[in-house]
Amino acid sequence: MKKYIGVDIGGMSVKYGLVNENGNILAKRTVKTEGTADSVIDTLGKALVAFLEENGLKKEEIEGVGIGCPGAITAATGTVEYSNNLGWKNVKLTDGLKKYLDTEYKVSNDANVAALGEATFGAAKEFSDVIMLTLGTGVGGGIVLGNKLYEGNESKGAELGHAVLVLGGEECTCGRKGCIEAYCSASALIRDTKRAMLRDTDSKMWDYANNDIHNVNGRTAFAMARENDPAAVQVVNDYIMYLSESIMNYCNIFRPQAVVLGGGISGEGKYLIDRVAQYCKERHYGYQGTPEVKILAATLGNDAGIIGAAALLV
Amino acid sequence: MKKYIGVDIGGMSVKYGLVNENGNILAKRTVKTEGTADSVIDTLGKALVAFLEENGLKKEEIEGVGIGCPGAITAATGTVEYSNNLGWKNVKLTDGLKKYLDTEYKVSNDANVAALGEATFGAAKEFSDVIMLTLGTGVGGGIVLGNKLYEGNESKGAELGHAVLVLGGEECTCGRKGCIEAYCSASALIRDTKRAMLRDTDSKMWDYANNDIHNVNGRTAFAMARENDPAAVQVVNDYIMYLSESIMNYCNIFRPQAVVLGGGISGEGKYLIDRVAQYCKERHYGYQGTPEVKILAATLGNDAGIIGAAALLV
Repeated sequence: MKKYIGVDIGGMSVKYGLVNENGNILAKRTVKTEGTADSVIDTLGKALVAFLEENGLKKEEIEGVGIGCPGAITAATGTVEYSNNLGWKNVKLTDGLKKYLDTEYKVSNDANVAALGEATFGAAKEFSDVIMLTLGTGVGGGIVLGNKLYEGNESKGAELGHAVLVLGGEECTCGRKGCIEAYCSASALIRDTKRAMLRDTDSKMWDYANNDIHNVNGRTAFAMARENDPAAVQVVNDYIMYLSESIMNYCNIFRPQAVVLGGGISGEGKYLIDRVAQYCKERHYGYQGTPEVKILAATLGNDAGIIGAAALLV
Repeated sequence: MKKYIGVDIGGMSVKYGLVNENGNILAKRTVKTEGTADSVIDTLGKALVAFLEENGLKKEEIEGVGIGCPGAITAATGTVEYSNNLGWKNVKLTDGLKKYLDTEYKVSNDANVAALGEATFGAAKEFSDVIMLTLGTGVGGGIVLGNKLYEGNESKGAELGHAVLVLGGEECTCGRKGCIEAYCSASALIRDTKRAMLRDTDSKMWDYANNDIHNVNGRTAFAMARENDPAAVQVVNDYIMYLSESIMNYCNIFRPQAVVLGGGISGEGKYLIDRVAQYCKERHYGYQGTPEVKILAATLGNDAGIIGAAALLV
């Protein structure tokens, strides 16, 4: 059975694991990442060599190393052009790691990697054409077509959070107005929750937040909507509408077999998924006479980064 | 050199041609289409057999027949599920034609075929990843990735005119509100032109329309904007903005190498293309730090249907 190493580079630590061709993690480790890009590469490079040894493997016995990394990546060269999270600019990651472990490398953006992982081994493993939206601080996107990641020219596509849904709407982090991210991210949900609380000082959301608006988070409105607080119900209804209309856009554009939702907000689970699926179904998944699109919650959880990165080599 | 037959089925007639592997039309014909789907298939089937004979070709000497057709097509079976233009429902086109000429058939929607034609032989032939928007009565779309048409599940994707740009905006023909088609189609442009004329009874657009608003067409605002009529300039500025914001959404989603504009409105040519390209360039093609996207006018003109259909077999 083929074996892969998957690496998930984050701002605070790097997680890596040995993954088999069924997407199972056979062993995993975490190292802290501190200091410059060079020192991270040095730490990681040595760690990977040691990790193979621990697992009794020679480098010829693995198919290679897949890496998911936040930021703008050029997949063809394995270069991290810019990563705000890591504070990296123009870091030749593949070239650096090859000096320690000379094997095949594939590098991609973390949102892409999450999508490929879910499409290959996770929620959407039955499907070949899958769109994933990662609903976190921002909204990340991944496109899997014919079981392969589609990244666009210079790996700069799949910015699915940065399509305008509300022309002239809320300011987005990208500089445009009205992007999907400006309505469907956790940041947007928190903004809208706070606004609703300021409009309705009797809302139960105040109790939930210990009467301090600074305690509001992405769960506040969902939690109190489940208890039928009218202001919270309205915030959640609007959120479901924004997200579902965004999903229906992607249904009309790609007509995928499945849309997978990941990121913090997808932790609302069945409640979120059922409501989004119903909204979309009632509206024919965007266009009458088209096939059903499965709306699924991501299933790979904390290991998504490792498993998805390994899937880059499958 | 390989040879293909391209067939362009329209509401009034069927155009077909012999196309070589450079996308040149070696011979072409038109037959009128009248009556039932069966009679159209009978006419076309016999015409194709005669056409091969006229050109001194045996069926083994062509790679097959590519067909572009308006409506909802299932490419896998060559079935026209529904075509409003043709008045067809569930017509097994490939099966029908095989009884006359037993060769390879590929059938796709006319907007897809136009996109493939431009990406293979036309404006974007240098590029592998191309998005096309056809700005006609509606807004059609085509997606070419890695030189291949991407059609989505059951060939029901690439409805690029039916992504919401203005949430809750103008009614769209599809039943949703605020779709790209509801702002960027010729119908939308005519609606906006008429509204502007009703607001400004001194506009030169009234003269251009012989003082009868029924004479307004997709060229009215562009023609008078070129003569600096303020109302017309505003209509065109808004149109450029709607179209460019839509294009930037597709740049962020696909990060294609090129976006091709076809359909009646693309007849505004360099004036339209230059303004859209400038709008997009000033805004980094949707996202800072991403590669330039070429904005191009379609070049295959009236033969696009035949050439694009032939490209289905390339």
